[in-house]
Amino acid sequence: VQAQRHKTMAKTKFEYVRQFEADDTCLQNCWVVVRLDGRNFHKFANLHDFRKPNDERALRLMTRCALTVMEELNDIVIAYGQSDEYSFVFKKTSNWFKRRASKFMSHVVSQFSSSFVFYWKDYFKDQALLFPPGFDGRVILYPSNQNLRDYLSWRQADCHINNLYNTTFWALVQQGGLSNSEAEEKLKGSLAGEKNDILFLEFNVNYNNEPEMYRKGTVLIWHKVDESIDKKIITPDAPEGKNVVVKRTRKKVLPFHVDIIGDKFWEEHSEILADNS
Amino acid sequence: VQAQRHKTMAKTKFEYVRQFEADDTCLQNCWVVVRLDGRNFHKFANLHDFRKPNDERALRLMTRCALTVMEELNDIVIAYGQSDEYSFVFKKTSNWFKRRASKFMSHVVSQFSSSFVFYWKDYFKDQALLFPPGFDGRVILYPSNQNLRDYLSWRQADCHINNLYNTTFWALVQQGGLSNSEAEEKLKGSLAGEKNDILFLEFNVNYNNEPEMYRKGTVLIWHKVDESIDKKIITPDAPEGKNVVVKRTRKKVLPFHVDIIGDKFWEEHSEILADNS
Amino acid sequence: VQAQRHKTMAKTKFEYVRQFEADDTCLQNCWVVVRLDGRNFHKFANLHDFRKPNDERALRLMTRCALTVMEELNDIVIAYGQSDEYSFVFKKTSNWFKRRASKFMSHVVSQFSSSFVFYWKDYFKDQALLFPPGFDGRVILYPSNQNLRDYLSWRQADCHINNLYNTTFWALVQQGGLSNSEAEEKLKGSLAGEKNDILFLEFNVNYNNEPEMYRKGTVLIWHKVDESIDKKIITPDAPEGKNVVVKRTRKKVLPFHVDIIGDKFWEEHSEILADNS
Amino acid sequence: VQAQRHKTMAKTKFEYVRQFEADDTCLQNCWVVVRLDGRNFHKFANLHDFRKPNDERALRLMTRCALTVMEELNDIVIAYGQSDEYSFVFKKTSNWFKRRASKFMSHVVSQFSSSFVFYWKDYFKDQALLFPPGFDGRVILYPSNQNLRDYLSWRQADCHINNLYNTTFWALVQQGGLSNSEAEEKLKGSLAGEKNDILFLEFNVNYNNEPEMYRKGTVLIWHKVDESIDKKIITPDAPEGKNVVVKRTRKKVLPFHVDIIGDKFWEEHSEILADNS
Repeated sequence: VQAQRHKTMAKTKFEYVRQFEADDTCLQNCWVVVRLDGRNFHKFANLHDFRKPNDERALRLMTRCALTVMEELNDIVIAYGQSDEYSFVFKKTSNWFKRRASKFMSHVVSQFSSSFVFYWKDYFKDQALLFPPGFDGRVILYPSNQNLRDYLSWRQADCHINNLYNTTFWALVQQGGLSNSEAEEKLKGSLAGEKNDILFLEFNVNYNNEPEMYRKGTVLIWHKVDESIDKKIITPDAPEGKNVVVKRTRKKVLPFHVDIIGDKFWEEHSEILADNS
Repeated sequence: VQAQRHKTMAKTKFEYVRQFEADDTCLQNCWVVVRLDGRNFHKFANLHDFRKPNDERALRLMTRCALTVMEELNDIVIAYGQSDEYSFVFKKTSNWFKRRASKFMSHVVSQFSSSFVFYWKDYFKDQALLFPPGFDGRVILYPSNQNLRDYLSWRQADCHINNLYNTTFWALVQQGGLSNSEAEEKLKGSLAGEKNDILFLEFNVNYNNEPEMYRKGTVLIWHKVDESIDKKIITPDAPEGKNVVVKRTRKKVLPFHVDIIGDKFWEEHSEILADNS
Repeated sequence: VQAQRHKTMAKTKFEYVRQFEADDTCLQNCWVVVRLDGRNFHKFANLHDFRKPNDERALRLMTRCALTVMEELNDIVIAYGQSDEYSFVFKKTSNWFKRRASKFMSHVVSQFSSSFVFYWKDYFKDQALLFPPGFDGRVILYPSNQNLRDYLSWRQADCHINNLYNTTFWALVQQGGLSNSEAEEKLKGSLAGEKNDILFLEFNVNYNNEPEMYRKGTVLIWHKVDESIDKKIITPDAPEGKNVVVKRTRKKVLPFHVDIIGDKFWEEHSEILADNS
Repeated sequence: VQAQRHKTMAKTKFEYVRQFEADDTCLQNCWVVVRLDGRNFHKFANLHDFRKPNDERALRLMTRCALTVMEELNDIVIAYGQSDEYSFVFKKTSNWFKRRASKFMSHVVSQFSSSFVFYWKDYFKDQALLFPPGFDGRVILYPSNQNLRDYLSWRQADCHINNLYNTTFWALVQQGGLSNSEAEEKLKGSLAGEKNDILFLEFNVNYNNEPEMYRKGTVLIWHKVDESIDKKIITPDAPEGKNVVVKRTRKKVLPFHVDIIGDKFWEEHSEILADNS
């Protein structure tokens, strides 16, 4: 008992250590972007037999996780993903957890990681998950709408460049019979047009007909959807109840595989950048 | 093709957005602590029928996750966990990912979260995991060994205080038949000694005999363990090979449920605080 | 000699301490504001017989210092001062000293402080400076033009409120014969209109006729000014040289005592907020 | 009046801009070092005819300013200066201005800069100060006593290296008749011993006999000094008053030109690194 009273008092004595926590509040009136990337995903993909150049199951699982993040956390207005990375954009006016960077980052990364294991079997069926994967994260602030659009454009341009390269590389290897290093050598310094030509002339592949999910990545935004729900109600003239259809509008996250570099997307979804406190 | 060349060049144009990433290098020569906490775990515990006041399965699962974190990431010398939280201590001299705070934090939180789902069934058997849980994280720097010890003491004192309270509270409710609010009222402002008396006099429970894992939480440290491995070797006098036992020493993470507030633990494990670059 | 070689080598050994310097780069694409305030200026003003409620000499000296800061340092587009404070705004695109906050802050504060002593006698004549004064500084980032305008409006509204209060307070004391505490008591909780009434009815002072420098503070901005310079040139028809007047346009800092809360100022000086890299 | 009420209310409306101020609290339990350097002092020295290689007046003025900083601000336990730089060390436990980095830095730089102009004429007599000089500053945290000592050793080793070079360089130029670039060429890559030889063999100068202020820089620390004050007191047997000498101990900043790389200084002044809250 004496020891315990000692410990209770001790807690007060130790509590000074809380003063060592630094304030990491994000600057007001900036877009807060959290980007996460798979840790050692090259090796992870090999060990789990990911298909090359794109594994549809993996991409859909990533998007499933991102969707969970958007629905579980507050104030995310748009997310963009490609390959083993996803970016989440919290609105400028967000005051979620007092705008603390560590909260934004850790909640996103944590929810994404647990979802990845949780939903794995929905996408990979019999392919067992061999070990729990890791993702790293970072927080970046963008003061202006143009900065934010340029950030997202940067990631989508990166998707395009990598996917065109990978599509050509794996065509050379899988269909052309080249070794990995031969394919690498052949593509060294090649321009986009040259890769397109290889695909078209050697493998009869029109790159522009490749699936948009591979070429453009995935954008997640909130959409108003109309729902019809069957409901049984009881009225004086139907005391035993009768079925009616109730309509309501709900906000829901939906994925798109579209260009976000040009203006069209932003004009059609002008509410994303609007100052909606 | 034209569009693609445009996009390739565009990437360069957009790349300026990288300059917005802030440097979050941790101050040199400080202990780096990452602490994570379950998000909404009160609700999570109720929905998953956690036993009160302690659910052994949940505590062991938490420790399993922490162990994975220590083995997967670099430079963690000690971890301490209790309830739905865990603290990880990176050594002072760590230069893992150039000491970037976001890397320390996101890797810990991510690996822990994915492990929680991955290992869930090993501890909860038939009790299904209903949804992927979240954890939040923070990074704290401690310049001196005394500061670090005081931090860990603070968490263990917190464990003690909460567990004594919870043990008494649930005894009053589960065995004493009080309602939650009656038990709360009865314990309001009570000293440690009074709670001990309630446990002993009313429920014949000697608090000091409660399991140490509940009273002290869990410390994870690296231990040298001797392993014996059977190996077949070929020698001149045994050309067909013979079995020998090879002994080697390996470092392994082991859990302890001991006092870390007093000096004894730190004297017995003086290598933890030693400057081992 | 041996000792010296030892020391030279030692320098390399000690140089690791540079790694402890933290990066304090200001977020890109934000206005960088440095505000400084006089340290203990209430006491400083008393010891140097500052006139109440406003000492014209002190205000003009402050503005002289601010002008030196703008001319000596780079990228300051506007400054605003009142009482013992001055704010300096570096343009969004400034990359002066790689946007390091400590550089912005220390250069402004240092140049201002040394100028204050240097130019003192030009404004205070026989009134000797008794000791070197101090100023403290801070750096604040504003992402949008509206944020910046609101910051400057905040300072000018502060100027108005304080000056109306001080003008009334000192009228009550100097002309009305009240003690300091009586005047304080009388003004407690009074609205702006009530202070105006006191000034007008009791002291025949129309506040709106008070000098604009007192009521609005001082704005410093860059102005193009035309200069005419006498120059002697030699031409074929005037081999002995002749005097001509050469005109040129030069940028110069000029002070204004005008409203910067409304739109008029910003429309007339639209170049200040324009993105002029 | 209407406009003024509007402005008063407006202030509240604008006050949100305060939320943009970032918290820059220094980590607890670390030494806080502020170092300042003269801005463009090479040019400043030339324009003010500083003597080469060392101008005693300038060095003494720098120390006079540093002394003022130590006496005016709180919690500085030691300062070290050489050439146009000075470092100030705030004690680990300092809570001055809540340990805000901007306060530490701006107060030091400001007080130093105003003092430089204020005390200029005491050291430079007829040599007029042509314009107000600038100094830049930075804040660095050191967790351990060893780190702090290594920082100060780094600065003193830098003093030694530069002074030996400059002494030899200017001997070659002023006495040896070499041009600046010839002297530079001759010293390129030379070791400490070679510079000592040049001084001794060519100019009959024993470097170790050069003034210690030049070779070691200046350390400022607090010293207890005994003071005797004449005081007139009135006693029953001396109703008309009598003179007595009252002794008291006072803390005062004193300069030293000694080695601070070795242990001797720190053993003799062990109170500097002691944890004296």
